[in-house]
Amino acid sequence: MDSVKPLAKGARSRQAILRTAASLATVDGLEGLSIGNLAARLGMSKSGLYAHFGSKEELQLATVETAKEIFDADVVEPSAALDDPLARIRALCFAFIDHIERRVFPGGCFFASVTAEFDTHPGAVHDRIAELQADWTNGLQALIEEAQLRGQLRVDEDPAGLAFELDSFILMGNTRFVLNNDVLYLRRARTSIDRRLAEASV
Amino acid sequence: MDSVKPLAKGARSRQAILRTAASLATVDGLEGLSIGNLAARLGMSKSGLYAHFGSKEELQLATVETAKEIFDADVVEPSAALDDPLARIRALCFAFIDHIERRVFPGGCFFASVTAEFDTHPGAVHDRIAELQADWTNGLQALIEEAQLRGQLRVDEDPAGLAFELDSFILMGNTRFVLNNDVLYLRRARTSIDRRLAEASV
Repeated sequence: MDSVKPLAKGARSRQAILRTAASLATVDGLEGLSIGNLAARLGMSKSGLYAHFGSKEELQLATVETAKEIFDADVVEPSAALDDPLARIRALCFAFIDHIERRVFPGGCFFASVTAEFDTHPGAVHDRIAELQADWTNGLQALIEEAQLRGQLRVDEDPAGLAFELDSFILMGNTRFVLNNDVLYLRRARTSIDRRLAEASV
Repeated sequence: MDSVKPLAKGARSRQAILRTAASLATVDGLEGLSIGNLAARLGMSKSGLYAHFGSKEELQLATVETAKEIFDADVVEPSAALDDPLARIRALCFAFIDHIERRVFPGGCFFASVTAEFDTHPGAVHDRIAELQADWTNGLQALIEEAQLRGQLRVDEDPAGLAFELDSFILMGNTRFVLNNDVLYLRRARTSIDRRLAEASV
């Protein structure tokens, strides 16, 4: 047992570093995540951080994966066992908005924040962010198609178009909530999602 | 006449600097706009730039005003003379999407870009961005109310809610268009705006 302790401690420490990095990234950006800044924030030496991450890009990519784990645990997993696709769509959208409102990340949605930063910066970080955004949207679209097959949502609704609209309300709610520090915009997002799902329902 | 030439030349030069600054800001952020970087990009001396802008914040605020002038000329003014409020709402939304598609700013909508950057950074730049965002949304809402008074849009539509949804589609279209460099997302935004306005029409 003793022989694994240092590794377990290292893993916890790496996790703690990355959770701090993910929070900071929603305020100062992933590019603002220099190993120097992060070391100062964590009260660690730069060489201690370099032992975990060989380069800034490696740190950025690991931060994105940690943010995804936090998002999945907070937003995706609570409704993963629901068999009802329409109930799951609603649960996912509302869990996402609750996640933003609770400021799990101080700058709102981690992925909205880093997408705006990396959209014009080609490279591995950009590609991973685009992939994760597509995974989310495709997941929503698959649930919409399943709800259509089960007779819950109208078959004349374009699943990609409906997923785009639900995502739009969440993104807009997030953006104005963080800009104005006012939950009014998250309430608007919830109202729009409810209205749109009611309209698409059979 | 000769006595005003240097001033006019200075004004043109200031305008040229700020247009470059506004473009750069949608790629590297307003915080990435150091007077040093901008001077290098423009092939000017730092002292030449300091003659125009006393501080980084002054440069950022002037860049925001220039971006607003470009946006107004490109998106707002072409339909300003339209007397029909519903036609004007549609013209504004579509001109906005065309403006994004033409990459007037390389990183898409200037205000989406700098909002994501400054949302968690209190100060004069944040406040001006929030004010301009509110002006746009309030303008859209006022047109919706006018269209309701004229019997074009249903009176049971919440004007603020409808403005929120139209803005949502534009923001989401912009975000995914820039991230994936794919006009599909701008087409989706146009489709959703048309669908939503048709639904709200009397």
